[in-house]
Amino acid sequence: MNRTGRRPGASTTREEILTAAAEAFSTGGYEATSMRQVAAVAGVDPALVRRFFGGKEQLFAAAVSEVFQPEHAVAMLLDGPRGRLGERLVTYVLGLLGEVERPGPLLGLMRSAATSEPAAALIRTFLAEEMLGRVTSKLGVDHPDLRAALAAGQLVGLVISRYAVRLDALVAAGPAELTGWVAPVLQRYLTGRAPVVGDGEEVNA
Amino acid sequence: MNRTGRRPGASTTREEILTAAAEAFSTGGYEATSMRQVAAVAGVDPALVRRFFGGKEQLFAAAVSEVFQPEHAVAMLLDGPRGRLGERLVTYVLGLLGEVERPGPLLGLMRSAATSEPAAALIRTFLAEEMLGRVTSKLGVDHPDLRAALAAGQLVGLVISRYAVRLDALVAAGPAELTGWVAPVLQRYLTGRAPVVGDGEEVNA
Repeated sequence: MNRTGRRPGASTTREEILTAAAEAFSTGGYEATSMRQVAAVAGVDPALVRRFFGGKEQLFAAAVSEVFQPEHAVAMLLDGPRGRLGERLVTYVLGLLGEVERPGPLLGLMRSAATSEPAAALIRTFLAEEMLGRVTSKLGVDHPDLRAALAAGQLVGLVISRYAVRLDALVAAGPAELTGWVAPVLQRYLTGRAPVVGDGEEVNA
Repeated sequence: MNRTGRRPGASTTREEILTAAAEAFSTGGYEATSMRQVAAVAGVDPALVRRFFGGKEQLFAAAVSEVFQPEHAVAMLLDGPRGRLGERLVTYVLGLLGEVERPGPLLGLMRSAATSEPAAALIRTFLAEEMLGRVTSKLGVDHPDLRAALAAGQLVGLVISRYAVRLDALVAAGPAELTGWVAPVLQRYLTGRAPVVGDGEEVNA
């Protein structure tokens, strides 16, 4: 994270507010969470939360950014063999989520997207555009936006199925096994050959 | 649907209640929807809804079953070339969802799963076990439960990203183009070779 020019004291308070915000949004969902509530959890005055972040949408966006760290993630995803991009991506996301029995704030932020239009728009911006859209545009592939959206959709589905819906087989599978299944799919979406639409041939089984 | 032995009049009322239930759960979410509200929308006495379905969980399960029609779906998925199973599956789901501007009840039922534990458990039972789990067990593949869960996760992610989060590129892509991208992924999950965990080889780009 780039904190150049920010006072250490202010940075710490800002981070405490963001941690409280991620926790509050994760637990209560986007709609039910108020600025006042976040301020109370962080132990600061609500006016300070407003001064740092403005409104609830901006606070949510900052919390999402703090969890995803898009600059860092994009650099990490692009730094390494192109043929193992899918593996780096799923490893990064599973790492962010943590243990299945104790999911971190990312899950709550993603769940907020399913039930709130503003939260959905912000998650969309981050996952598909800020993160994966920047990756596909740097890769120079065809259909960069669609590829980013398909990869984002696969990740959202994996995350919800494993951590929210808690499908038994996905909970039982460890990160290495999941990576083995999902990495080639993400790789295909991000760098594989685009399908020929209307092609009636059977796909490889 | 098997309606043997049920009076035609009762069947019609039952269907009207299920249609009202799917609509109510879709619009308001699982937690906010009451039996009384569903009865009001269907224009029947709340006692009749209880007599037909018991409690809210059973009503939700019946609404999910009515939308998915698992018996029909499993038969359809297994009836055709094995190498085009992924294509049949994504075509079926996109067909159930309808137009992106006017999503049908399936979306609401899936969204309920993201924010409610009982709804999540019921969707899990249907999508992964009643539908895809029965498909993978009939196929005789290894890891039948994990394959069904991975395919279910990919479908949930696609559905949420296109219809709820409304990622631009997924909204803009038509059903044929989406099928071209997603069918091979579902095919891989359902019938492809299982990954070797711990294998450090690069995947095909």
